[in-house]
Amino acid sequence: MYDVAIIGTGPAGLSAALTLQLHEKSIIWFGSPDMSPKVEKSEKIANYPGVGLISGEELNRRFREHAAQLALTPVDRMVTTIMPAQGHFSLLADNELYESKTLLLTTGVVSANGIPGEAEYLGRGVSYCATCDGFLYKGKTIAVFCGSKRYEHEVAYLAGLAEKVFLFTSYKDSDVTAENIQRVGPIREVKGGMKVKSILLADGTEMPVSALFCLRNAVAPSTLLADIRLDGPHIVVNRQQETNLPGCYAAGDCTGRPYQLTKAVGEGNVAAHAILDYLSEHA
Amino acid sequence: MYDVAIIGTGPAGLSAALTLQLHEKSIIWFGSPDMSPKVEKSEKIANYPGVGLISGEELNRRFREHAAQLALTPVDRMVTTIMPAQGHFSLLADNELYESKTLLLTTGVVSANGIPGEAEYLGRGVSYCATCDGFLYKGKTIAVFCGSKRYEHEVAYLAGLAEKVFLFTSYKDSDVTAENIQRVGPIREVKGGMKVKSILLADGTEMPVSALFCLRNAVAPSTLLADIRLDGPHIVVNRQQETNLPGCYAAGDCTGRPYQLTKAVGEGNVAAHAILDYLSEHA
Repeated sequence: MYDVAIIGTGPAGLSAALTLQLHEKSIIWFGSPDMSPKVEKSEKIANYPGVGLISGEELNRRFREHAAQLALTPVDRMVTTIMPAQGHFSLLADNELYESKTLLLTTGVVSANGIPGEAEYLGRGVSYCATCDGFLYKGKTIAVFCGSKRYEHEVAYLAGLAEKVFLFTSYKDSDVTAENIQRVGPIREVKGGMKVKSILLADGTEMPVSALFCLRNAVAPSTLLADIRLDGPHIVVNRQQETNLPGCYAAGDCTGRPYQLTKAVGEGNVAAHAILDYLSEHA
Repeated sequence: MYDVAIIGTGPAGLSAALTLQLHEKSIIWFGSPDMSPKVEKSEKIANYPGVGLISGEELNRRFREHAAQLALTPVDRMVTTIMPAQGHFSLLADNELYESKTLLLTTGVVSANGIPGEAEYLGRGVSYCATCDGFLYKGKTIAVFCGSKRYEHEVAYLAGLAEKVFLFTSYKDSDVTAENIQRVGPIREVKGGMKVKSILLADGTEMPVSALFCLRNAVAPSTLLADIRLDGPHIVVNRQQETNLPGCYAAGDCTGRPYQLTKAVGEGNVAAHAILDYLSEHA
């Protein structure tokens, strides 16, 4: 019986694992030893305090190094089912059973209904984060898919940087405007070579662009835990990162926006401390 | 009118400032250019993801460097009063007035309401600013609470004006000296009628004084902003780091435990994004 099972090796999972390891808890940590593909694919990260301007690849390398320094080794198995039991959780991963007193979900959000080419060019011109990558396209022509009115300030931000923005909004009554924004119809495909070169519109027109920003709520197919409370694609947590299930916590992108690594490490830290409290109360 | 006023140059304030700067918001950032004394004094930090084992001194140096890289320069002035107005905030710092659409408090954790009597006699003998109010007590007997070595030049300045100074320092190895400075133990209370008349020491002694100067890194939130909702010494915030006052956000140690830099940077990031949303909604 482990003290804690952590699912996910992104920034939130790592942050929690570091703190729990320093507190000498027994940890089973599921996920890829490559750590975070989302961090890995970030061209540049500029707002992680103390780290300066860094490539996602380099930061992800430092994440792996930090885990190794504390002898934290992820178990590269896919957890497929979790069953809450009396005072603990049973996890099934690649048909092997694990048991843990507490559970931390740091599963990220996975985008569904993507644009053809989107996954292929992620990190090579396709970005999900205006804050993270916008500055890379200063003076360039870019395309933006905006999936919700609540991301319109990010569109405005991008329009302030880019030379020209081809904008498609998937909803009605959008009112973001700027001289350099040109409305287009649905984006059928994003194309390129080594990097993004153009978007293909539903009417067959092809527009040369340097980047495609996809700003939308991604769908989290969280079928892991039947009774966990969700709000759309996100796991509902309080300020201690507690979910509705006792002993079960969540941190990082899976709990909602902003999808930022700095937010994720913070939540992982808070979750770790809440888990320490829980373990000492249920010792 | 600034888009945002940030109070505090610890990890939470820095994290928010970085993100808001990348979004090209106009920022006024109050605090010490030395950044975080709390980080600076940490012997070793092991759980800040990606950074490995690091001394607080070195991490704080990297914080300063990161701010400088983004051309973020803190204004080394002490904000003593904040007045919420119609759709903006007016801030008084060393007798100079600043105006901002939004406000982010990253003030660290200060003992709930300072010294008993402090809030009550603020402006009636209690002062946070030697430069501003020192001249009022020429030839008088005053008390000084000094919370950090960096304010010792203000103590020396006050000693040059006053007839006598009763000094309490809350840290070790203070080396400010003058013939008219008398060291005293902790100040338990400041008392008076219409104005300050005396200080009560922890050992029960009462010393007649005309003023009490409180020189420290942070002012208690309730002193800064009369109507802010607190829970003990902490500012009450929701998951978006919103306080009870529209347009006013808080992040870092001032919002509660765990008192961890990783939590603080996460909250600063979340607050910055909430502020971006607020600004776009109120544009």
